[in-house]
Amino acid sequence: MARASGGESVLSKHLRVMEAFDAADPFLTLSDIAARAGLAASTAHRLVAELEREGLVERLPDRTYRLGVRLWEMACRTPGALGLRELARPHLQSLHARVRQHAQLGVLNGTDVLFLDRLSARDAVVNATLIGGRIPLHVSSSGLVLLAHAGPEVLERVLAAPRIRYTPATLCTPAELTAALRDVRARGWAVCDGHVHEESRGIAVPVYGAHHDVIAAMGVVVPNDGADPLAHIELLTRASHAITEAMRAASLPPSHPGALPGGRFRPLVTSSVRSMEYLEARAGAAAP
Amino acid sequence: MARASGGESVLSKHLRVMEAFDAADPFLTLSDIAARAGLAASTAHRLVAELEREGLVERLPDRTYRLGVRLWEMACRTPGALGLRELARPHLQSLHARVRQHAQLGVLNGTDVLFLDRLSARDAVVNATLIGGRIPLHVSSSGLVLLAHAGPEVLERVLAAPRIRYTPATLCTPAELTAALRDVRARGWAVCDGHVHEESRGIAVPVYGAHHDVIAAMGVVVPNDGADPLAHIELLTRASHAITEAMRAASLPPSHPGALPGGRFRPLVTSSVRSMEYLEARAGAAAP
Repeated sequence: MARASGGESVLSKHLRVMEAFDAADPFLTLSDIAARAGLAASTAHRLVAELEREGLVERLPDRTYRLGVRLWEMACRTPGALGLRELARPHLQSLHARVRQHAQLGVLNGTDVLFLDRLSARDAVVNATLIGGRIPLHVSSSGLVLLAHAGPEVLERVLAAPRIRYTPATLCTPAELTAALRDVRARGWAVCDGHVHEESRGIAVPVYGAHHDVIAAMGVVVPNDGADPLAHIELLTRASHAITEAMRAASLPPSHPGALPGGRFRPLVTSSVRSMEYLEARAGAAAP
Repeated sequence: MARASGGESVLSKHLRVMEAFDAADPFLTLSDIAARAGLAASTAHRLVAELEREGLVERLPDRTYRLGVRLWEMACRTPGALGLRELARPHLQSLHARVRQHAQLGVLNGTDVLFLDRLSARDAVVNATLIGGRIPLHVSSSGLVLLAHAGPEVLERVLAAPRIRYTPATLCTPAELTAALRDVRARGWAVCDGHVHEESRGIAVPVYGAHHDVIAAMGVVVPNDGADPLAHIELLTRASHAITEAMRAASLPPSHPGALPGGRFRPLVTSSVRSMEYLEARAGAAAP
């Protein structure tokens, strides 16, 4: 295995360079990159040159770098993120059209919720969610829903690590969390008033996949005004059921009489019926 | 530089493995990967194991592999793809709500248009566009718009390479292309009746950035029914202008009195005004 000094693989070093970029700092100079990745300037220079040759980073006229479009292009082929997001999108849009604040979709990743999508209105309340961003499970309503339906080892890992308190309302003690998770399981939803920011309420429900497993959480972020959350819970539940139906339809074997067209594209692509038929026919024609 | 035998960098080999996955085949076995990447089975095995350790590929219970969510998470920090898509999204949604077929956004990449986003209706006509997918510039209305506003070297490269004919209406000869590009520049839009598929019409307009440069093409795909395209062109032009306004507002220096809040997040994130203020304040507090 190709390993640089110290036993770290070459791939890991390239990844350290790419991970130096984040949503707050998408443009970096070479010395920013070296400092953030903990690499010598000469090493950073060499790795960035290799990444640039491959289109994974791009150099701008002002000599800063950004992550390259090729990275995004490859990432569009990740069924675990984009397949689900594509299927869920019309339902997230309908939900957002009704709620007119924030509507979002997140999945469990480690001890965080990783958000796959978010729709927001310009005048909506504070929401910490970024698309492709993470929030610790214990902090957000989507996180509590995912934690409530995860294996006990995930809760153990959450309880074993330090837990950030975003506001005085954030659930942090083991007793608070255990009680909240019991409620979420019993009720089928989580309501978090001011857990991330005092002006915001998060409400989330589980999204079930084709095999009764929880595959995501769907949530809204709305004003923390003490209103009855029932109307929002009903909208969320309806949208969640619609996504489950779409997942079931997409997961039928292509030979099933009820299967939607699209063949091998179905895990990743959601388009019109005619477009899916076209893609399937083209792929069939191109196959060896 | 760490190079495997034959002078190919280790990074290139990892990328060859990741490029083996595509939208038609997002799930591959180890032997599929070896065959598609042109690698010996033992080499493929080692590279896949390294990629799996880093979360860039994921192994499923049926022993197939897919591209990992970590790849998508990193890709969410690419301003060249996602920053633009986020800014454009509300305008693409408004356009789609009016057109109710397909609405899409693409950028120039090599001699292709690379599509950043697409919204579709279930009963819409055939559209070959995939999010993260490419179509050769000469084939599609978005491609002709981008080619019309690109430097002459891009047209030279298009004319130097073989040009696929999707249908009898696809523009392929140098004379056809040159005349069409002149029209696109003069009129400000492209209408392509049946160039990709006989039942579909593509219409596209340029999207200008903050500095009067063409940064993208915005298009619709609608029935190829001979109707007057003017209403669609007007909707597209209005949406395109709205994106340019949003780009201008996002590119003002943070100190400018007219600048939107969000600080360093602005190139990548579009959320509510209160959320952008919150993100900016949090990043400021976390800065060294």
